Amino acid sequence: MILHLKDTISAVEASRLAEQYKAFHVVSNNTNVLITGSGVKEIPDGLEDKVAEHWVFPNDMQLASRSYRNETREVTIGNTTIGGKTGNTLIISGPCSVESEEQIRQSAALLKANGLTSLRGGCYKPRTSPYSFQGMGLDGLKLLAKMREEHGFTVVTEARDATHIDEIIEHADVIQVGAKAMYDQGILRACAKTQKTVLIKRGFGTTLQEFVQAAEFVLSGGNENVLLCERGIRTFETGTRFTLDLCGVEWLKHYTNLPVILDPSHAMGYAYGVAGLTRACTALGVDGLLIEVHPNPKVAKSDASQQLNHAEFEALLTSIKPIAAAVGYTIV
Amino acid sequence: MILHLKDTISAVEASRLAEQYKAFHVVSNNTNVLITGSGVKEIPDGLEDKVAEHWVFPNDMQLASRSYRNETREVTIGNTTIGGKTGNTLIISGPCSVESEEQIRQSAALLKANGLTSLRGGCYKPRTSPYSFQGMGLDGLKLLAKMREEHGFTVVTEARDATHIDEIIEHADVIQVGAKAMYDQGILRACAKTQKTVLIKRGFGTTLQEFVQAAEFVLSGGNENVLLCERGIRTFETGTRFTLDLCGVEWLKHYTNLPVILDPSHAMGYAYGVAGLTRACTALGVDGLLIEVHPNPKVAKSDASQQLNHAEFEALLTSIKPIAAAVGYTIV
Amino acid sequence: MILHLKDTISAVEASRLAEQYKAFHVVSNNTNVLITGSGVKEIPDGLEDKVAEHWVFPNDMQLASRSYRNETREVTIGNTTIGGKTGNTLIISGPCSVESEEQIRQSAALLKANGLTSLRGGCYKPRTSPYSFQGMGLDGLKLLAKMREEHGFTVVTEARDATHIDEIIEHADVIQVGAKAMYDQGILRACAKTQKTVLIKRGFGTTLQEFVQAAEFVLSGGNENVLLCERGIRTFETGTRFTLDLCGVEWLKHYTNLPVILDPSHAMGYAYGVAGLTRACTALGVDGLLIEVHPNPKVAKSDASQQLNHAEFEALLTSIKPIAAAVGYTIV
Amino acid sequence: MILHLKDTISAVEASRLAEQYKAFHVVSNNTNVLITGSGVKEIPDGLEDKVAEHWVFPNDMQLASRSYRNETREVTIGNTTIGGKTGNTLIISGPCSVESEEQIRQSAALLKANGLTSLRGGCYKPRTSPYSFQGMGLDGLKLLAKMREEHGFTVVTEARDATHIDEIIEHADVIQVGAKAMYDQGILRACAKTQKTVLIKRGFGTTLQEFVQAAEFVLSGGNENVLLCERGIRTFETGTRFTLDLCGVEWLKHYTNLPVILDPSHAMGYAYGVAGLTRACTALGVDGLLIEVHPNPKVAKSDASQQLNHAEFEALLTSIKPIAAAVGYTIV
Repeated sequence: MILHLKDTISAVEASRLAEQYKAFHVVSNNTNVLITGSGVKEIPDGLEDKVAEHWVFPNDMQLASRSYRNETREVTIGNTTIGGKTGNTLIISGPCSVESEEQIRQSAALLKANGLTSLRGGCYKPRTSPYSFQGMGLDGLKLLAKMREEHGFTVVTEARDATHIDEIIEHADVIQVGAKAMYDQGILRACAKTQKTVLIKRGFGTTLQEFVQAAEFVLSGGNENVLLCERGIRTFETGTRFTLDLCGVEWLKHYTNLPVILDPSHAMGYAYGVAGLTRACTALGVDGLLIEVHPNPKVAKSDASQQLNHAEFEALLTSIKPIAAAVGYTIV
Repeated sequence: MILHLKDTISAVEASRLAEQYKAFHVVSNNTNVLITGSGVKEIPDGLEDKVAEHWVFPNDMQLASRSYRNETREVTIGNTTIGGKTGNTLIISGPCSVESEEQIRQSAALLKANGLTSLRGGCYKPRTSPYSFQGMGLDGLKLLAKMREEHGFTVVTEARDATHIDEIIEHADVIQVGAKAMYDQGILRACAKTQKTVLIKRGFGTTLQEFVQAAEFVLSGGNENVLLCERGIRTFETGTRFTLDLCGVEWLKHYTNLPVILDPSHAMGYAYGVAGLTRACTALGVDGLLIEVHPNPKVAKSDASQQLNHAEFEALLTSIKPIAAAVGYTIV
Repeated sequence: MILHLKDTISAVEASRLAEQYKAFHVVSNNTNVLITGSGVKEIPDGLEDKVAEHWVFPNDMQLASRSYRNETREVTIGNTTIGGKTGNTLIISGPCSVESEEQIRQSAALLKANGLTSLRGGCYKPRTSPYSFQGMGLDGLKLLAKMREEHGFTVVTEARDATHIDEIIEHADVIQVGAKAMYDQGILRACAKTQKTVLIKRGFGTTLQEFVQAAEFVLSGGNENVLLCERGIRTFETGTRFTLDLCGVEWLKHYTNLPVILDPSHAMGYAYGVAGLTRACTALGVDGLLIEVHPNPKVAKSDASQQLNHAEFEALLTSIKPIAAAVGYTIV
Repeated sequence: MILHLKDTISAVEASRLAEQYKAFHVVSNNTNVLITGSGVKEIPDGLEDKVAEHWVFPNDMQLASRSYRNETREVTIGNTTIGGKTGNTLIISGPCSVESEEQIRQSAALLKANGLTSLRGGCYKPRTSPYSFQGMGLDGLKLLAKMREEHGFTVVTEARDATHIDEIIEHADVIQVGAKAMYDQGILRACAKTQKTVLIKRGFGTTLQEFVQAAEFVLSGGNENVLLCERGIRTFETGTRFTLDLCGVEWLKHYTNLPVILDPSHAMGYAYGVAGLTRACTALGVDGLLIEVHPNPKVAKSDASQQLNHAEFEALLTSIKPIAAAVGYTIV
């Protein structure tokens, strides 16, 4: 249950009530909000005259649900706002992994040349084998930060586990919680304590409801800047790397109030299909697209097969603009 | 292996050779073609000087593969051609089931009003329970045939099993082999003996390769008019009815030469998501779309939740035209 | 809803009522039984005083459900009865495909030597490629029939599609409806009209409820001799051929009244794991086991990798007897 | 590649070589072992005369593979050894969550009465919702430690994320890396630095190969005491909580050298099926079984539906002993 307390209740008093009733307490738009589990169906005894408004839910999708807030939330990344009525589709692009200063400078130049503002690059790679390239770590983060200083980009990078979450929070503008880490409460709770934007990727074995509940960890902890990212689920089909779940995206848009970002690169796993899929994603009308692009995909240290080269990326960018326009969106 | 015989070899001789070498024999573009299993990697002894050209394959995707024919095949349905360089996206629409003359007349009127030419409707419904509505059978087929006579529509309808395949072949323009029937060799072999177009739906548990191999049953039996239809696979996610596999569609377009049709209605299972998904499918650039529309979805005898009403359908049709244009296609 | 009519109602009258109320009519244990869809929650108007007993169901699992009959049904195959309180685990074994008289004679000798009574062998193979071995067809059926005549075996063989169902019904003792054919109403309805035992394999993409509903097609058509066979479902894991769903088997035993047969050979797909899995299946306490065994697996024309050789089979048979005993079952 | 260095090479020298060749270095049975990625197929230049023996691998399953060590490794937990030729099946049991001292004392008494030695209980629960019971945390760990002191039990408990891994390592005998945390390199690397036993649960969306590669993180970091635990994968079937992948267990036993533990409770999700499944698991011949048991499952704060009560647990324990005996194992 979500309870909006009357504005006669102070934040201190709200916090005390939260403790008493074992609820979460957040302040949203100057309102003190308490959130209990969804099993609570009636205003708890003693709170009746302190509550201005309340919502009951069939399950633990509460703060993120459309039955609580019936519009997509706005989230601002650098100078760009997505969600709400903005009609913006934000392009977040760059290489799978930060590999060297030269490489990331080439990526930065590509973004600059195409008027893009958001640079992605992995520094702590969540590889499934200890024998693969594990990322540049803090050195990579510093390279991304350098690009931000030089170009004004916003930087999107991934936290692999809770051991380095503080570094990520310090250096990134958007903290990406990867598909393998999205159940990690150490990360989610740390993300809840900052006001930086958190992009949560759906685990490849994660139901839509669990996915949204991961966002509830952040929202109920006090950070409203949450993006949901669909990047493909694991199915019996192995001809492609994963299966991009666009039915699920329609479900997310129907039932939740969070902006939705799509990652066709990881879903497909092969460059040949990324452009087509990205066009399909654009036509859905979404708040952002994550696209992997590398100056020379063949020598990439991770995900070599799925990254576009610069020419392919620019052709793709050109092709999606009229599609976005056809559905009332703008590529930014 | 596919072998194109020299044009000095007669069809009779080709047929005899097929028997001798346990191969399939078809005549395509006036060429006698033999097809063996893909395990054959060298021209069999005794055939060397009878062969004009040959192709070796890593698996049993042979006639349908791009390494055999590196362009999408053209298939003509009524007066409309799709595939090849046509850039046509054919809309196939109508109710899930033919329920009554009144209902199918309303559907026909909707198509007519919107300049559409291809009417779908199920007569033998492949229900999973014996206690559900099983379709009107032959009476339904006759209603569809009547609409064809009156309006010049092409009629698309589904064979549930081999017991009524002859009736379907007689009355339909496009024989739909449903997701639950696509391994049915009784149906596939019957379809191979006609020249009517065969639309094969991917089983919801079927790999892409098995799907294409179902088409090989029809192609190797002598019917080249085959369409592949992706309609959603079954995954762990149950928030939507199925998961539309657009990664798989990119794979099909990359590896096969058959036109691809998409069915967002069955994949989604809920009307709220059908329009968005259809727009995504359109932006992929596909040869056709199957969309379920019913004069009054609430009272539909099957798949009530996923059928659009007439107003929703017309709005959708309007919205996809500029998307199709943006990717070089025309809605027909 | 299932309705047991009073014994004052004749079969002719029951049949008339079935038509009037659009219900199925079967005679079971001398009782006239009507079955409607599960949407019917109250005795229909006009039937109240004709009904002795009735059952309401939450879904279309009705005749097969434990809430209708709270014990496993008995089914007799040749001289052996399984289910009920028999505690029998029937071994059904033989090669994947009947390949020649010599081969099937060797299989027969193996069964004879080990005191087994039930011989399996495929004649119409549901291959996914037209270029693979498709089975011996009617010639194979006749070989199986010959073995029955010579040894008194019961013969289990598979119907691939409805075109040859009559031949199968004529020659088999147990009609196997394969995983790819189990939605085929042409087959299911034909099976309903005989009294031969029908073994329905679960489709690899089929939910447990759909699986049981396939059995309802046969049960509601008047044949009570139905066996359910779990043979592995398709999942994201491709290290093994399929994933044997023993959780699902526990569900079937808990919710349905039909005997359950397990097929570890197809699930595993590799001989190395078949013995271990078979022992696990035995310990579950099941009504039968389907095990593929071939005189020389390496040269088998289908499923070469998963068939046991004769020595492996005999060792396995020895090993499962004490396990069966430990759970109160007898290998027969 | 795995390289066993000659015994003339000191550990210090081995460590230097590891750095030079970007390899992992562990000491196993007094041998200095270097491990590179599996892409290395020939002994690197300069190492030829320092290597006593080497192994090449098709993928990154190296230290855990049977082609490296062709027997199951022995792992000792308290006074009990499993794996190797011991033929022991270790029962690890207790409640899903530690809830109170009274509850955990009842669980301890149950183990004591049945001669069991290994107590499980979750303290940091990896719930999918922030609004569910999250576990007692450190207080729970201390209760488990108390039971160890009083009864000599070994204690098995789960690390949810890297933030509390040090506490877990301090208080547990067996560190359980849960299904949602098994890609967490923060946890895996911390586990590699201790010599405590690490039980890694397979993620419900994790392939067998990725699962084994998670173990490689621990093994290549210097801790050889690793157990693999199958606990059910997520499939399209939702009638049960997960699908226990016994085909996968046969694969693990065939391809890896690590002891295998099974968790039928989580796989099934419903108490009615746990006993049957546990019997099946026992008949496979496995190194351990994780079984959830609660003094009063109805009031359990997590996983209420799947925990056995004490009477059910004792009946189950009795029933599996003869099955274990039949396959040459002993329940300990």
